Amino acid sequence: MPESPIRKLVPFSEKAKRDGKSVYHLNIGQPDIETPEVALNAIKNIDRKVIEYSHSAGFQSYRDNLAKYYKSVGIDVDSKDIIITTGGSEALTFGFMATCDPDDEVIIPEPFYANYNGFAVAAGINVVPVTATIENGFALPPVEEIEKKITSKTKAIVICNPGNPTGYLYSQEELEQLRDIVKKHDLFLFADEVYREFCYDGATPFSVMNLEGIDQNVILIDSVSKRYSMCGARIGAIISKNESVMSAVLKFGQARLSPPTIDQIAAEAALKTPQSYFDNVVTEYVERRNIMVEGLNNIPGVFCPKPSGAFYCVAKFPVDSAERFCQWLLEEFEYEGATVMMAPASGFYSTKGLGLQEARIAYVLNQNALKKAVKCIKEALKVYPGRV
Amino acid sequence: MPESPIRKLVPFSEKAKRDGKSVYHLNIGQPDIETPEVALNAIKNIDRKVIEYSHSAGFQSYRDNLAKYYKSVGIDVDSKDIIITTGGSEALTFGFMATCDPDDEVIIPEPFYANYNGFAVAAGINVVPVTATIENGFALPPVEEIEKKITSKTKAIVICNPGNPTGYLYSQEELEQLRDIVKKHDLFLFADEVYREFCYDGATPFSVMNLEGIDQNVILIDSVSKRYSMCGARIGAIISKNESVMSAVLKFGQARLSPPTIDQIAAEAALKTPQSYFDNVVTEYVERRNIMVEGLNNIPGVFCPKPSGAFYCVAKFPVDSAERFCQWLLEEFEYEGATVMMAPASGFYSTKGLGLQEARIAYVLNQNALKKAVKCIKEALKVYPGRV
Repeated sequence: MPESPIRKLVPFSEKAKRDGKSVYHLNIGQPDIETPEVALNAIKNIDRKVIEYSHSAGFQSYRDNLAKYYKSVGIDVDSKDIIITTGGSEALTFGFMATCDPDDEVIIPEPFYANYNGFAVAAGINVVPVTATIENGFALPPVEEIEKKITSKTKAIVICNPGNPTGYLYSQEELEQLRDIVKKHDLFLFADEVYREFCYDGATPFSVMNLEGIDQNVILIDSVSKRYSMCGARIGAIISKNESVMSAVLKFGQARLSPPTIDQIAAEAALKTPQSYFDNVVTEYVERRNIMVEGLNNIPGVFCPKPSGAFYCVAKFPVDSAERFCQWLLEEFEYEGATVMMAPASGFYSTKGLGLQEARIAYVLNQNALKKAVKCIKEALKVYPGRV
Repeated sequence: MPESPIRKLVPFSEKAKRDGKSVYHLNIGQPDIETPEVALNAIKNIDRKVIEYSHSAGFQSYRDNLAKYYKSVGIDVDSKDIIITTGGSEALTFGFMATCDPDDEVIIPEPFYANYNGFAVAAGINVVPVTATIENGFALPPVEEIEKKITSKTKAIVICNPGNPTGYLYSQEELEQLRDIVKKHDLFLFADEVYREFCYDGATPFSVMNLEGIDQNVILIDSVSKRYSMCGARIGAIISKNESVMSAVLKFGQARLSPPTIDQIAAEAALKTPQSYFDNVVTEYVERRNIMVEGLNNIPGVFCPKPSGAFYCVAKFPVDSAERFCQWLLEEFEYEGATVMMAPASGFYSTKGLGLQEARIAYVLNQNALKKAVKCIKEALKVYPGRV
């Protein structure tokens, strides 16, 4: 069994001193997990003399092997259904541009990954939120709430599953509700499934590609960033059986020439990552999640639904404002020489005034650091002046 | 003196057989020049365990060293004036989005690099061409022609210098004419200077960054693709002293997270490429240009202005339609088992009906292949049915 990819080091974030104190960076989704050795070795062993463009849709061999990967996780697609992109970011931007006209609308359950707003702006479209609540553990909002948001300008529904920032994993039943809406109103369904490998407690992710009867509506967004801890490789993919969508996406792909070459080589090699890597990673993240979520729920007044996927959770704090609390943690507080950095959740809601007491926590540090971080939050809430 | 980077191999394109004949690919700007060893070695010696995101503006060390490179070529910028992008493509797209509102206009001398259209579409703006002619060697169109195109929606003038597809190198006088227009009408001036290192016959490129009195108007677009024959690395940069433009560009940069990490490491290492590499490359391209341009001008009825930069030329052929001629070359013609692929120039003109007898030629193959390609074109014109 290969060495665990989990780094047994102090988290890199501890190096980032601020006013002489350590900061536990729970605010960003940059995992401390090592990139698989097969991927790093592919980079080290690169035997090209010229770093040339690849095809605008990506290297054919990578697309072929990626199709095999999808088949191995129960998603039946061919290489022709796949276009390699510069990160999942570009995949979603191209997807929006290929399916929407300026001023069209996409419905997204909030809280959602804040960068979706940036991709929508780049595509000239508008995000219409439908609210999921922390009290319901961020389950899919009721069908009628979603349907209320549909107008003549609505072109798509966008989900992230498992979800950033909530870690919520949609059930097959929830996804089938979405399928029915999409079918009834002839919408596209975008699913960002980049956290597919990060599902816990025996939960199996159900891909939108396996929803029956809407294969012309479904657009899958993927990326190697989280799966192989290769955020910096900027390799993603857009996958759909809808030929006219893919043909439009390819045109945008041709305009930007090609996704990065070296990174595609690394990503293709990463497909050979042994299952033990993921087993180790999942085991580690389950421990981390338990430390974080149980630790938070044990703090009086704090509520944090237990997520089944990704490596985030959203917690509600007994404070006047999570934004002020997070800022105060950084600027005014320390416990045993350290403090905690979290992302106020209001930035993940599109509706003003929501999530004001919530923060997103990325449990991407080692277990010891997370235990200290929980303790730090607990002590902070004892003395925070804005406690309610 | 290190080994010449010019590959002494048959051009890779010869492998691309079509109907059993060789094809000289003069249609794309993918040079056969080897990537500098320092860059390839940096990739091979990568010592990271995690391929993490970089800063959205790029690695600070790369930006610092890039600023030193610019100073070394007489362009006085600081790292804060530089944002690293995913290729020059992204640099121009971000630049358009940061300076223009939807439906705004940018004026571009035609013929121009066709992908500029794609970046304009992505930014929701319109390209307004001003025509340069092959008879004038593609010199800058007269000031009054440019000013005629300016409307209340005009936000910028965009040039490529030295130019793709023409190879034309603007003189300081021409650039000062542009400066005066830009200043008078308060426009931005975008200059794509990615071919800076490819200037011939002792010509020195004059950067728009050195135009006096318009430092708030000038936006430089750059890329490592051509300079280091690293098209597949997808590393570019946008450079400006205009802080509000750069601050807007950074926001778009944050939405896409980061430019590729490994590629930035390679690009930073490439800055240490010895001068002898460029000397060899320039010597080689001068030979190639001479073979191609003199060869073409020696064919009865063909006219090709001699360019001073980049590795393209545009030639006019005595044919009914360059598009039909190029297609016929591929489908109907062969000479000594080979044919030639060129890019019809009409695709580089925005005005319909222009450039119909012209084609762009990228002289990116070795000298022997280019000689054969010229001979092949010569023989083809003797028998082409649409000859005029």
